[in-house]
Amino acid sequence: MLEKYRLDEKRKVSLKDYDPDDTAGFASKEEVAESFEALKEQLQDIQERLFASKTNGVLILFQGMDCSGKDGVVKKVLAGLNPQGFRAESFKQPTSDEAAHDFLWRAHKVAPARGYISSFNRSYYEEVLITRVHSLIDKKTANSRLKYIQQFERMLADNGTALIKIFLHISPEFQLNKINERMENPEKLWKFDPSDLEERRYWDEYMKAYADAFKATATKTNPWHVVPANNRWFRDYLVLKIIVSALSKLKLEYPKVDMNHYKMQEE
Amino acid sequence: MLEKYRLDEKRKVSLKDYDPDDTAGFASKEEVAESFEALKEQLQDIQERLFASKTNGVLILFQGMDCSGKDGVVKKVLAGLNPQGFRAESFKQPTSDEAAHDFLWRAHKVAPARGYISSFNRSYYEEVLITRVHSLIDKKTANSRLKYIQQFERMLADNGTALIKIFLHISPEFQLNKINERMENPEKLWKFDPSDLEERRYWDEYMKAYADAFKATATKTNPWHVVPANNRWFRDYLVLKIIVSALSKLKLEYPKVDMNHYKMQEE
Repeated sequence: MLEKYRLDEKRKVSLKDYDPDDTAGFASKEEVAESFEALKEQLQDIQERLFASKTNGVLILFQGMDCSGKDGVVKKVLAGLNPQGFRAESFKQPTSDEAAHDFLWRAHKVAPARGYISSFNRSYYEEVLITRVHSLIDKKTANSRLKYIQQFERMLADNGTALIKIFLHISPEFQLNKINERMENPEKLWKFDPSDLEERRYWDEYMKAYADAFKATATKTNPWHVVPANNRWFRDYLVLKIIVSALSKLKLEYPKVDMNHYKMQEE
Repeated sequence: MLEKYRLDEKRKVSLKDYDPDDTAGFASKEEVAESFEALKEQLQDIQERLFASKTNGVLILFQGMDCSGKDGVVKKVLAGLNPQGFRAESFKQPTSDEAAHDFLWRAHKVAPARGYISSFNRSYYEEVLITRVHSLIDKKTANSRLKYIQQFERMLADNGTALIKIFLHISPEFQLNKINERMENPEKLWKFDPSDLEERRYWDEYMKAYADAFKATATKTNPWHVVPANNRWFRDYLVLKIIVSALSKLKLEYPKVDMNHYKMQEE
């Protein structure tokens, strides 16, 4: 089931091949509820082993258009993790200090240590997306950055960081509905950002920039995953399944401790 | 119910007045289960309002002897929070860079911003506890640090940080059982630290150092809470109740947004 949503160097497809309404044949939230809970428990077990073994770091990176559910998926899928081994990072407008550094600096600073999980809500990919769409950088600079991103990610993987890259795929109509919802609900109004309406106009340019990013950085070791996200329940389910599947491959074990050493100390 | 567990300048009691086995009359986990779930939902609602309003930061500070359940309480009580607005900080042996700074520096760096919640597993209080017990600092330095802590905490409060200080109170017998459990369970063995056995010998000195800390820093604005922690379920319940009670007093509201401004922009 997961193969279809995975992009790597062998499987380069266009975002147009993905239907944001797709639910992989599942009809409703109820249909995946039991499996969802079981996967959540698996993830908690994996986290315990990860924390105990300190053999790998885990970086779960979310990208997607405004209203694609990046905040929601962190809350719904990752809120059950032990907070002491997990950090949710968000990348907003760079501060002046961040902007004074190279484009990978602020993300690298908060990369997960071995034993820990971090999620990135947006990431260094913004530096080839919003900047490219608004012509703040030219195509040559974008291509050069994409090459550095690919190398940076390979370095992370080589040094024990499991990188899971997820693109939350929504339709422009879905986005407009969400923006309207925010404007109409007093408890959601604070989330409304007028610049979201502005950015909508560049939808096609964003899709083009994403396509370029996938093409340059979807590799066998660090693939991208395209998650249809018009249905929240399917989005959450698929994201959780992708994470558990990726981390199960790490085969994490509790470390062996030589107790004889300590027993002698006690005597 | 909470009054009894609260220490401030009016209410100075000795740790000996608290029974680590106390459960406030509740007989079992089942008896508090429903209330526990309701409080968890209240806390999530408070967090949403806190994040939306950005009027206050929240700092929940846990201290306690080894095996008192500082890790456990973060996992059981705080794991349901939205990870994007919450950080669990742990203070271990200072790095050389941290040790080269004043004793409040590393904690201040990770104090919560307005809108955010942080928990501290251990804190700057270690600098008047372990250091005092092992005579790394003299009584005069300890008293001076306690004064600075009190002033630092008042400054935080004056600038919008709600500080909730919790001491997890266990008995030495309970601790020994926990250490033995860790040594016997292969999935918990990695948590076993031989220095815990070493530190046990200084139990009375630690209690004395804690008493001094409470005396100097339990104020009306920033009280301490002594939580009987021999029963995990009661520990979790009481901690959650203390947090919800403290944060309810902030009266957090969703911010008002002037929509007319945005409507005009759209036209």
